[in-house]
Amino acid sequence: MAILVVGSVAFDAIETPSGRRERCLGGAATHFSLAASYFTPVRVIGVVGEDFGPQEEAVFARRRIDTRGIEHVSGKSFFWSGSYMQNLNEAQTLRTDLNVFQSFSPKIPAEYQDTEFLFLANIDPVLQEDVRRKMPKVKMVCGDTMNYWIKDHAENLARVLKGLDALLINDTEAKMLAKESNLVLAADKILNMGPKALVVKHGEYGATAFFCDRTFPGEPSVCAFRAPALPLAEVVDPTGAGDSFAGGFFGYIASQPKLTPAVFRRAMFYGSVMGSFAVERFGTERLQQLDPAEIEERFALFRQLSHLD
Amino acid sequence: MAILVVGSVAFDAIETPSGRRERCLGGAATHFSLAASYFTPVRVIGVVGEDFGPQEEAVFARRRIDTRGIEHVSGKSFFWSGSYMQNLNEAQTLRTDLNVFQSFSPKIPAEYQDTEFLFLANIDPVLQEDVRRKMPKVKMVCGDTMNYWIKDHAENLARVLKGLDALLINDTEAKMLAKESNLVLAADKILNMGPKALVVKHGEYGATAFFCDRTFPGEPSVCAFRAPALPLAEVVDPTGAGDSFAGGFFGYIASQPKLTPAVFRRAMFYGSVMGSFAVERFGTERLQQLDPAEIEERFALFRQLSHLD
Repeated sequence: MAILVVGSVAFDAIETPSGRRERCLGGAATHFSLAASYFTPVRVIGVVGEDFGPQEEAVFARRRIDTRGIEHVSGKSFFWSGSYMQNLNEAQTLRTDLNVFQSFSPKIPAEYQDTEFLFLANIDPVLQEDVRRKMPKVKMVCGDTMNYWIKDHAENLARVLKGLDALLINDTEAKMLAKESNLVLAADKILNMGPKALVVKHGEYGATAFFCDRTFPGEPSVCAFRAPALPLAEVVDPTGAGDSFAGGFFGYIASQPKLTPAVFRRAMFYGSVMGSFAVERFGTERLQQLDPAEIEERFALFRQLSHLD
Repeated sequence: MAILVVGSVAFDAIETPSGRRERCLGGAATHFSLAASYFTPVRVIGVVGEDFGPQEEAVFARRRIDTRGIEHVSGKSFFWSGSYMQNLNEAQTLRTDLNVFQSFSPKIPAEYQDTEFLFLANIDPVLQEDVRRKMPKVKMVCGDTMNYWIKDHAENLARVLKGLDALLINDTEAKMLAKESNLVLAADKILNMGPKALVVKHGEYGATAFFCDRTFPGEPSVCAFRAPALPLAEVVDPTGAGDSFAGGFFGYIASQPKLTPAVFRRAMFYGSVMGSFAVERFGTERLQQLDPAEIEERFALFRQLSHLD
């Protein structure tokens, strides 16, 4: 089934110990949709400026991503500049120009109205809520957020959390959101805020899913599931790894007839697989040129890396 | 088969957010031997002072650990005092009194001479080498070390590393030893220093084993294996978690007829299992009172936590 993502489509300037790119296609919705496109049809809602041309459009088109929901307005696209020279695990933001994103008001094309899977990438929770409200046929909603919304927009974020099937954030964000330094206690608190499941991404150490009784009603209760990350000799560019994880995770779920605990576990692995590809090249370079056999090969590698038999 | 550990037997004063203990039985050899004792017979070489009495002796005796190699000398036992109030992942050492450990010269009882499995816990690499040399029948040697030996006793440590089947250290130590910030590259470098396998412990994120062609000659090459850690709502006391991991890991290997890749993978899980028990109570409290069924139950939980099917 098709998946709809609402989030940023941007240009990034990135420097890492492996090199630098002055301008590459980025944004959460871009990374997410490319990663998800290997599993299921993807639709995007976002906004871009006049600098988003045929070359950028082609990146989506080659993966058959439906971009009718990307609004083109006058001005420049969202621009972000970051450095990983000090720490590959955390970007140092050098510059953020919201540009056309500043007045982003998501509009949902009529053709998207039947979408059943919705991903709310990291944007203003007011916009996340707005999109959710306009999509009455949605059956499963996952979302992301970040420190800025957690700290300064807590009430708006709380309303979004209530409606989420899964929240995907990193360790720091989970502990900040729960105001709790132990991850298990933090997960308990967050699951009480609304999400039926919480996926915490640990960067080079993989990711953990925490479940509550409402996650799989009627299924035997499973408290948590851990997916490994692939030990990599070079992380060229960590930008978008989390969104690529989300794309692999949710894309796989949307491709399956039913969400079962086994599907959720495999989705965690596909999330980790897509994250591992994303960081191998700058920006979305790697995600643009995967073939399905590579994905299955790496999935098998993740199994070998973590399974006893 | 019996396993021999050489290392510290000590008294610890510990404070953590969960409470404090003014004096509890500790030391690397203590944690290791208790954890290993659930899998295989254990022999200990160490030194204690007059403050090590029947009560402490009983802790070993109840687990049928052979303490004939623990030398009793006049003076006080090794004493360590540490705090985890700032950071549960790293002890802040408040005080270290080497006491009788200062002039420790390992003596190997005749009854230990046939031991085939040797664990060199974190002590002066000169002593590690000395014990290794005195044990000609040993078939497999694993070892630990720490920042102090890596930084200031590099040449001595280098000689020990050459003879190791597996080195078990944490992320920080691995990166320091290899002078390399990427863990995969660090592992490559360390495997070139001698150890046939490297096990890197990630604390709350589990552990990764790195292999080289010499690890399992003739077996299909496997580059790495990751064991998860159990997400815990309370880490009462992290002291000895790494030694307990080593005890579970090496104890399981020594209990098996042959070291195969499958045995190594299960050993990683048993290591993580014993580490997860160790941190549930202060000192060795939890490791003293396990029953085998609990260990198997937790092993099953680790499988459920990490396996797709």
